[in-house]
Amino acid sequence: MNELVDRLKAIVGESHVLMAAAALDEYSHDGTFMQGAAVAVVLPASTDEVRAVVDACRTARMPVVPRGRGTSLVGGSVPVEPAVVLSVERLDQIEIDAGALVAVAGAGAITGLIQEAATQAGLMYPPDPASASMSSIGGNIACNAGGISCLKYGLTADYVLGLTVVLADGRVLTLGGRTRKRSSGYRLAQLFVGSEGTLGVITEVILKLIPLPRHHALAAVSFSSREAAGEAVTRLLSAGHLPAALEIMDREAVELVASAAPIGLDRVPEALLLVEQDGVDPERVLEDVLGMAELLDGDETRVAQSAAERERLWNVRKSFGKVLLSMPGNYFSEDIAVPVSAIPEMLRRITSLAKSSGLRIVTMGHAGDGNLHPCIVFAEDQRPLVGEAAARLFHDAVELGGTISAEHGLGALKRDHAVLEHQPVEIELWRTVKQQLDPEGLFNPHKVFPEGPPDGKFLERQPGWGSTRRGEVAV
Amino acid sequence: MNELVDRLKAIVGESHVLMAAAALDEYSHDGTFMQGAAVAVVLPASTDEVRAVVDACRTARMPVVPRGRGTSLVGGSVPVEPAVVLSVERLDQIEIDAGALVAVAGAGAITGLIQEAATQAGLMYPPDPASASMSSIGGNIACNAGGISCLKYGLTADYVLGLTVVLADGRVLTLGGRTRKRSSGYRLAQLFVGSEGTLGVITEVILKLIPLPRHHALAAVSFSSREAAGEAVTRLLSAGHLPAALEIMDREAVELVASAAPIGLDRVPEALLLVEQDGVDPERVLEDVLGMAELLDGDETRVAQSAAERERLWNVRKSFGKVLLSMPGNYFSEDIAVPVSAIPEMLRRITSLAKSSGLRIVTMGHAGDGNLHPCIVFAEDQRPLVGEAAARLFHDAVELGGTISAEHGLGALKRDHAVLEHQPVEIELWRTVKQQLDPEGLFNPHKVFPEGPPDGKFLERQPGWGSTRRGEVAV
Repeated sequence: MNELVDRLKAIVGESHVLMAAAALDEYSHDGTFMQGAAVAVVLPASTDEVRAVVDACRTARMPVVPRGRGTSLVGGSVPVEPAVVLSVERLDQIEIDAGALVAVAGAGAITGLIQEAATQAGLMYPPDPASASMSSIGGNIACNAGGISCLKYGLTADYVLGLTVVLADGRVLTLGGRTRKRSSGYRLAQLFVGSEGTLGVITEVILKLIPLPRHHALAAVSFSSREAAGEAVTRLLSAGHLPAALEIMDREAVELVASAAPIGLDRVPEALLLVEQDGVDPERVLEDVLGMAELLDGDETRVAQSAAERERLWNVRKSFGKVLLSMPGNYFSEDIAVPVSAIPEMLRRITSLAKSSGLRIVTMGHAGDGNLHPCIVFAEDQRPLVGEAAARLFHDAVELGGTISAEHGLGALKRDHAVLEHQPVEIELWRTVKQQLDPEGLFNPHKVFPEGPPDGKFLERQPGWGSTRRGEVAV
Repeated sequence: MNELVDRLKAIVGESHVLMAAAALDEYSHDGTFMQGAAVAVVLPASTDEVRAVVDACRTARMPVVPRGRGTSLVGGSVPVEPAVVLSVERLDQIEIDAGALVAVAGAGAITGLIQEAATQAGLMYPPDPASASMSSIGGNIACNAGGISCLKYGLTADYVLGLTVVLADGRVLTLGGRTRKRSSGYRLAQLFVGSEGTLGVITEVILKLIPLPRHHALAAVSFSSREAAGEAVTRLLSAGHLPAALEIMDREAVELVASAAPIGLDRVPEALLLVEQDGVDPERVLEDVLGMAELLDGDETRVAQSAAERERLWNVRKSFGKVLLSMPGNYFSEDIAVPVSAIPEMLRRITSLAKSSGLRIVTMGHAGDGNLHPCIVFAEDQRPLVGEAAARLFHDAVELGGTISAEHGLGALKRDHAVLEHQPVEIELWRTVKQQLDPEGLFNPHKVFPEGPPDGKFLERQPGWGSTRRGEVAV
């Protein structure tokens, strides 16, 4: 171990190998309650340093957990066995190539800073996970992050034009480039997207940007039933409207936010839809939102008449994480998706689960994508119920044709449930890919792959699960 | 061979195994001039029949060339050695699940029919290759097809939510589903996208649909120099406009079309841009196009004032293929892409190549994506020059940071040039993937993989290259 640490220090410099207890603790956590066992944290500053670190760890047979900014909500960046945590946070350069409409960034660059840099150049990087102000683009790509803008603009995967990846054997792969279209050979870059750091270390990324819509308009539409809100979503989309955002919150979620600060609505509705449009011309954008609000046909409609009001209305949705964090109880945030038409049924099942389990479940999500985030808020004595409730959510989502993870990945927390969703032949092929790219299991061990049948107790068995609470919730 | 044919007949029925010379000839061609050697054509009608056909061919050690509708422009569906051609054309069912905003289709379904079915349900399948009225969705996915709408709406890859694939060993892989977002395990479906039938046979697809924009407006803007048109593209996009189409034609391309029929412009410009917008409200769409046309600031602007005029203006671009086909000379259609900022330089290099080679090169393309289709029109005695000119185009595109194939694939015609664009470590990994999924080289042999260094003569060495002319040009 000492020998490895010496080698790592020689590669990145002594100050960039962290061994202090506080640092090891810091990097043994992510956005979940999981607690890992980092033996050293190494902070390389270039692809070449990453390559050398990987070589050193492979030689020492020490697992490597690649880490962006540690905001995973599935334990994706937690070292579940003793490992070197390789943080790409120093790979944080951001270049906007405005002429080519692309961004070139280090994997550790914070997504929100890339968004800002693009905005300053009159361009837009659309993927917008709630964690954007904290999470890294490398982590976003490793998890195929989503967010509010996916309905209109697509997923993180759709914006990846190029990647530089350090492989387990130390080879460096440079894929793609600054060109928006490419049909030239196998799409290897897309194999690293969503691979959660198990196939290689992403060090540099090239992202597609689009013209920046300068103006936004927002409406908040209240409904007296969840079904009515779900049906309104379908009605809106099938009328040809493609909003820049279409978010849903159920009564419990609105109540949770309203408990912290006034939300500016006359009463708390059964369900709230937030519908936003963006574009070049402010008047046209506003007209578009007015038309959409009319079509949604809720009980109460608030259209933001100013930037301040827009921010206030968005805050009902966006402050959700912070309010959750300030609650006295614990919480567990989920991330399922179902076909859009199954939203009402999924909402019914969530309500029913809350009743039968006695757990408080607050739900919001990206309705236009069928992506719901039911958050289980629980008291300490309810802890044993949480794993079972989460397993029920996964089961229901898959039964309705959906997924157990829409935008967070499988990580450690969901991997045992993957067999609900994926057939054995698919998981066998995952193993083949892993075996070819990382035969010694160097990268992020015990993630993604289900190692046994789901027993509904996996969540409870996490070492230290629930013992700490980290960062801001990104949901 | 007879034994295999008997087995194939037992699987799909006697009438669905074609052995007549005319049929073998028909299925030994695609949209190129290449000529292949089909020994039998088999037309299965279900995933299970495809699986049985694959098993039979593997047992008989007979290569299988999966085929959609045979519109490849790179020889992708031509059997370059004796092989069974497995056409998925009978897998042509189309289901629109309007509530979930998805289409479920057989791999042989014609893309244009999927577009129509979606439109009838008030939805849109955006990818729009010029071949859409003839090509299959399976082939589109196998080549990650593009088209006019990619700038605003993305590539075929971005719309693939699910795939059913028959593997070389006869296993059937069912990936994804009717859910719009998924971050759950490795993204294997994206490995089959763009794999050109070399890794498996795609039999069924699930596609993301979006709300249908009901209205369109179009402007044709003329420029007195190509550079000015290229700069106008950058100016438009960096002002925040995201048009539904942004097409470019150079003087040679406009002249070619104008030679066949009046184009409705006062004079033939050095470069023509067609800019289109779509949306829900006709007035807003028209205003948007007027604003964009003003910003493009050309020498002459025509804004379509009626559906008929819009069709007439689009016809300048869309009749290109037919006019090309009716020319007395032969032609070779290319498909490169460069960073958007490099369009003016690439256009300069094309002009210079035409001058130095004495070849007529007419260029149009999807300017907003940096995707250009230079078409080399040549007399028979110029044939030896064509391969060299194409190699020059590939070289220039890669030198400018681009690709040798933006939306057509590598197939047989471009595979030897892949080394210009892709590093050895990447191509090695392609081989690893191929080896794992198809160790015996059953599927579409001699495609995608470069088998030697490019010598600039590959195009000329194709057996029968230029001996026939097939179908309609899809560019």
